[in-house]
Amino acid sequence: MTTKMAIGAKDIFRNQHRLIRFIEQSIRLCSNQSLKAAQQQQQQQQQQHQLNKTQLDGDFNISKSLNSEHWNAVPEPVEHDPDVGQQFYGNQLMVRLASPQQLQPKPDRDEDLIFGKQFTDHMLKIYYHKSLGGWQRPEITPLENLVMHPAAKVLHYAVELFEGMKAYRGVDGKIRIFRPNMNMNRMNLAAKRSGLPTFEGKEFIKCLSRLISIDSEWVPHTQAASLYIRPTLIGIDPTLGVASSDSALLYAILSPVGSYFKSDSSGAVSLLADPSYTRAWPGGVGNRKMGSNYAPTINVQKKADAKGLQQVLWLYGETHDLTEVGTMNIFMFFINDKGEKELITPPLNGLILPGITRDSILALARQWGQFKVTEGTFNMPRVCELLNQGRLLELFGTGTACLVSPINRIHYMNQDLYIPTMEQEKPVHETIRTALTDIQYGKVPHPWAVVIE
Amino acid sequence: MTTKMAIGAKDIFRNQHRLIRFIEQSIRLCSNQSLKAAQQQQQQQQQQHQLNKTQLDGDFNISKSLNSEHWNAVPEPVEHDPDVGQQFYGNQLMVRLASPQQLQPKPDRDEDLIFGKQFTDHMLKIYYHKSLGGWQRPEITPLENLVMHPAAKVLHYAVELFEGMKAYRGVDGKIRIFRPNMNMNRMNLAAKRSGLPTFEGKEFIKCLSRLISIDSEWVPHTQAASLYIRPTLIGIDPTLGVASSDSALLYAILSPVGSYFKSDSSGAVSLLADPSYTRAWPGGVGNRKMGSNYAPTINVQKKADAKGLQQVLWLYGETHDLTEVGTMNIFMFFINDKGEKELITPPLNGLILPGITRDSILALARQWGQFKVTEGTFNMPRVCELLNQGRLLELFGTGTACLVSPINRIHYMNQDLYIPTMEQEKPVHETIRTALTDIQYGKVPHPWAVVIE
Repeated sequence: MTTKMAIGAKDIFRNQHRLIRFIEQSIRLCSNQSLKAAQQQQQQQQQQHQLNKTQLDGDFNISKSLNSEHWNAVPEPVEHDPDVGQQFYGNQLMVRLASPQQLQPKPDRDEDLIFGKQFTDHMLKIYYHKSLGGWQRPEITPLENLVMHPAAKVLHYAVELFEGMKAYRGVDGKIRIFRPNMNMNRMNLAAKRSGLPTFEGKEFIKCLSRLISIDSEWVPHTQAASLYIRPTLIGIDPTLGVASSDSALLYAILSPVGSYFKSDSSGAVSLLADPSYTRAWPGGVGNRKMGSNYAPTINVQKKADAKGLQQVLWLYGETHDLTEVGTMNIFMFFINDKGEKELITPPLNGLILPGITRDSILALARQWGQFKVTEGTFNMPRVCELLNQGRLLELFGTGTACLVSPINRIHYMNQDLYIPTMEQEKPVHETIRTALTDIQYGKVPHPWAVVIE
Repeated sequence: MTTKMAIGAKDIFRNQHRLIRFIEQSIRLCSNQSLKAAQQQQQQQQQQHQLNKTQLDGDFNISKSLNSEHWNAVPEPVEHDPDVGQQFYGNQLMVRLASPQQLQPKPDRDEDLIFGKQFTDHMLKIYYHKSLGGWQRPEITPLENLVMHPAAKVLHYAVELFEGMKAYRGVDGKIRIFRPNMNMNRMNLAAKRSGLPTFEGKEFIKCLSRLISIDSEWVPHTQAASLYIRPTLIGIDPTLGVASSDSALLYAILSPVGSYFKSDSSGAVSLLADPSYTRAWPGGVGNRKMGSNYAPTINVQKKADAKGLQQVLWLYGETHDLTEVGTMNIFMFFINDKGEKELITPPLNGLILPGITRDSILALARQWGQFKVTEGTFNMPRVCELLNQGRLLELFGTGTACLVSPINRIHYMNQDLYIPTMEQEKPVHETIRTALTDIQYGKVPHPWAVVIE
């Protein structure tokens, strides 16, 4: 055990050094052009009012055009409540490896992977007990069942939250994760909202990197797949009061995944838009990645399935505003009233999960400056109007699990609306997908992609 | 094992016979006066437009005035989806008793009991596996930890729901539960809404009765306490897709409890009414007892605590309608515009949990016919108006855990509203509490109270 721990610690330090080296390189690469220059460029391009597709395809060397400070802008880290107690640190990590007999066979064909059904050999666990001073030492163990009291808060009051991340095996063989600080900040915001203890995101990422490193052979050797990472935080106090958690478990499991959604042969999904169901509402928690946002969607998804539709389009209010699609953010690409091409996504008004893919797409598209980029509300009547006038070009969902998911049909008020997303010559959603995967799979160096050993 | 099972089955049959005998007796008692006569009486009394308190106190022989068909009116049982598969039955129950060494000491003083911190020696478990045909055999085991895969749906997507019931030790030494069919129907409605399998409520009650019977010495020997029953249903499939559960666990744990809420010395609670938080909304699941309704309330409760307030008053919409208080339904007793005394509670419009205590209070108060009884929306401006005019008499929460919880203060828009609930000479909330506890503790025979061995 001591030997393993020593090896663990050595590896962490080595990884840290590599990480720091990589970030330094990225900063050097990026500092060639300043943020100001990029902003000027963007303003000029927005004045053109015309999408030049050739220019869009060619103008794609993202990592050289903005400095890393801008790219790595993340929300302010959550301030810990004074009574959270001690934090955990990556250099305290204990590792208990699976025995050779416990190791699972890896899937034969990456394309057969079903989302979240198969898991790797190890997991990460960090317990929190207020009565023991706060966060305990992080540990990596073989993947094993959790043991908990039947009164554990997570089983009764949905005291639980999670994140979705991915590790990608790049064209250079290196494994990368994507903007992990964003996940950590979002997770801490959800913890605060749930009466769960907050933690130091960067320390969790150190532990997670070690876990991925140990199970690195599970990261698929193809761009058609990746290793899905599921950090989870649950309240485990064995008491039935509806109250903050004095005991919690922060853990992570890993699952090799192919594509998330079933889609038709074209790769597009069809949606049920039923205004009688609401996902989130003002004064609620629709902008936090808490488990409680998901259970109420399952029965609605079942109704979509029964109609042969693949996902639910979540509408809000009497105006039937589009908010999210399935578990994704939604984007519309259209020709606006000024005749400009415009990419729009609902604003972060409390009803919308602040997606990291969403944020990345907005940042990329603004940098490209090839079309107008807006965070604004749009509703079903507007969608119908644009569709009738031939001005709706593309509609797509975005998220970590699916990346970009084009939409070709909406079933709304007993009508089928056919969306021409798949009929565009050079669709924006494809350009976006390429740009993101180029970063994630290391085809272009970018500070968003963090290499781990 | 076989012997224990045989004993278990024998006990169940004996219990069933006793139950049937009791219900038959109750029906005989109740059929003396018909529903119609009671309704006529109620109409006459409502025409009086005056509350005669003496009459209210004297007219209290509930069990003889309505027939049991009326009293036991419950929502239609949920229809099982065809693919739920086989059901479980009480006569299949397997019992594995705790060893003498495993038995826990019972609490010394019932009044010291903290809600949901201590549990009895045994629990009930019923697994569901679609791949094994549906529901499996019910089993009673020593209280033990649950073992589940870290990807279990309950830990990620809040696929969980529960009920709150109580077993009361009556003045005659018999143990009673209260309107259990209502809990079972509500639980099945929540299961449908959560993509969890439905079950036969009456079979679950048979199993639960046996569990209470085994742990009967845990039912406190006082009217100041009771045995809280927590039936729980969770989705346990070890897969990360947001989807219906093909594996589930229905279980029950028991906890001896005193009073639920902290209150001031007068026994009343103070409330935080902050319109920036919403508990439930149209198109959501606020009317189902799902875990997902609770996690988002914890942080708001913390804000109430920080202000020295005991509970949260949940408002809805721009008009600040009163919906619920903490985890309770809310009732207001006031003098209406016609000068009549009136008891009002928000209607079951989808935002309100259909409380069994709520339903019971409405039925009792309507039978008494001493004041007007209304299910209707009322808002904070109305509360302020009534208060200013001296027409607001009482405000109280109701629920299984607390029964009746009087409210003496609301902190709203930076103002403290003092409610004279505790200043009434013969308060209605006390009359209601007495009426309900008289039934629950067997002081008056009533079909709502079901005796178990």
